[in-house]
Amino acid sequence: MKKISENRAFGGVQGVYSHDAQSTGCEMTFGLYLPPQAARGPVPVLWYLSGLTCTHENAMVKAGAQEHAARRGLALVFPDTSPRGADVADDEAFDLGQGAGFYVNATQAPWAAHFQMWDYVTEELPRVLFNNFPLDEEAQAITGHSMGGHGALTMAMRLPGRFASVSAFSPITHPTASDWGRKQFAAYLGADAAAWSDHDATLLMQTHGFDGEVLVDQGTADQFLDLLMPEALAQAMTASRQPGTFRMQAGYDHSYFFVSTFMASHIRFHARALRR
Amino acid sequence: MKKISENRAFGGVQGVYSHDAQSTGCEMTFGLYLPPQAARGPVPVLWYLSGLTCTHENAMVKAGAQEHAARRGLALVFPDTSPRGADVADDEAFDLGQGAGFYVNATQAPWAAHFQMWDYVTEELPRVLFNNFPLDEEAQAITGHSMGGHGALTMAMRLPGRFASVSAFSPITHPTASDWGRKQFAAYLGADAAAWSDHDATLLMQTHGFDGEVLVDQGTADQFLDLLMPEALAQAMTASRQPGTFRMQAGYDHSYFFVSTFMASHIRFHARALRR
Repeated sequence: MKKISENRAFGGVQGVYSHDAQSTGCEMTFGLYLPPQAARGPVPVLWYLSGLTCTHENAMVKAGAQEHAARRGLALVFPDTSPRGADVADDEAFDLGQGAGFYVNATQAPWAAHFQMWDYVTEELPRVLFNNFPLDEEAQAITGHSMGGHGALTMAMRLPGRFASVSAFSPITHPTASDWGRKQFAAYLGADAAAWSDHDATLLMQTHGFDGEVLVDQGTADQFLDLLMPEALAQAMTASRQPGTFRMQAGYDHSYFFVSTFMASHIRFHARALRR
Repeated sequence: MKKISENRAFGGVQGVYSHDAQSTGCEMTFGLYLPPQAARGPVPVLWYLSGLTCTHENAMVKAGAQEHAARRGLALVFPDTSPRGADVADDEAFDLGQGAGFYVNATQAPWAAHFQMWDYVTEELPRVLFNNFPLDEEAQAITGHSMGGHGALTMAMRLPGRFASVSAFSPITHPTASDWGRKQFAAYLGADAAAWSDHDATLLMQTHGFDGEVLVDQGTADQFLDLLMPEALAQAMTASRQPGTFRMQAGYDHSYFFVSTFMASHIRFHARALRR
């Protein structure tokens, strides 16, 4: 593991590190914020999964999360959104290939060689983190924005017991029925839509649900409402009697101004689930 | 005036606008955050002047200021740091020319044609703001980072009565004695150092002082301490019995992680001076 940078922030340390990842077959970079409380022992972890075009850096510098994480004693993990590099497959579109891993394990050429983001985020990166930093593996929660909200919701539902709580900012809720999903799943997972349902939060809400509280925020002025389909997840959450909250926030769009506005509320939500 | 973008943020609106500026002879872009309270009438204004290489955008997306401004009912103004454009003089160095206006009115070729940032920030932009937005001209405060801290301190001391309070994050404190200053003042203002003293916070502190409270934060791990010379301003503040606070913050560097960490404290400081 290589240290890229460490900056003091809100009494803790915002670090950026890279490592040679086996799952994705390339060097992966991640951000990790350790709050001041980490100096005294392991702290709970809130995962933040980012959206299309993002790297580990966007949320780390624009979401304003560290202030609230420091207050509650939570670490924050900011993984990258895909494998990277000259020898990693890519596409000209911003929503396929590098920067658009969609948190799945690709089975199709040319993507399968590197695009194993499900395994990377759920298996390999956790081992790197828990082996190297003062983090409490028994106290994890997860959130994300847009494509990352999709990742957070699907991981939380498919890994019962791992996360105490899950939240999402303007998540892609129903990718098997959206152009943000069908295109990517066809490329990464193949044309057979049967392989897609494990990666659709609305379908997973109907079949699995989440064994804790769910919080979702969605802006009413979001320019991508047709692709995000918030109504699908809201319907599924209520129909399955999922404990949780779905908020439509008047006038907010898809930007990080929206994410940062409600970050304090999400961190409070997770801190409560983690008993902090 | 053209609207570039408006995003809802913390109940208010983060806008970006541009206008043809007479003082700098080019189109200038600025950010303006209006807190929710602006819907009910004019609100106080906190100016934020940015540092070398920055545009109007850096602090707007990375300083985390909107959350605290919304709580206190302050507007935030984020001017650009220089004139811009293909016909505007520039230099290969990051610390001269575009992105490095140093908040002075240049008198020397080739800079004088456009580099009139003192007039732009203290005269022209205020007229644009107070004529077009619900802002209270009688309730202004000013802050800034690095080169912008220099700008904030020099404007506050040379325009008595305009600003209720002034603060700075890791400011360039003594440019007439630093390589961040001598090079630029020689280029913009000419070789005669007599013309420089109006733009040196340490010298102005000795001759003018500020008719209110001053707050300065400086990180002890700042990579530019030799250029910033915090000891010069701290000495001048105490020697001249200037009411105010100079804090050395252990372990913090020059980045926006430092700025955002202490933003809440600075906004609280200004809100108190503005009786909010």
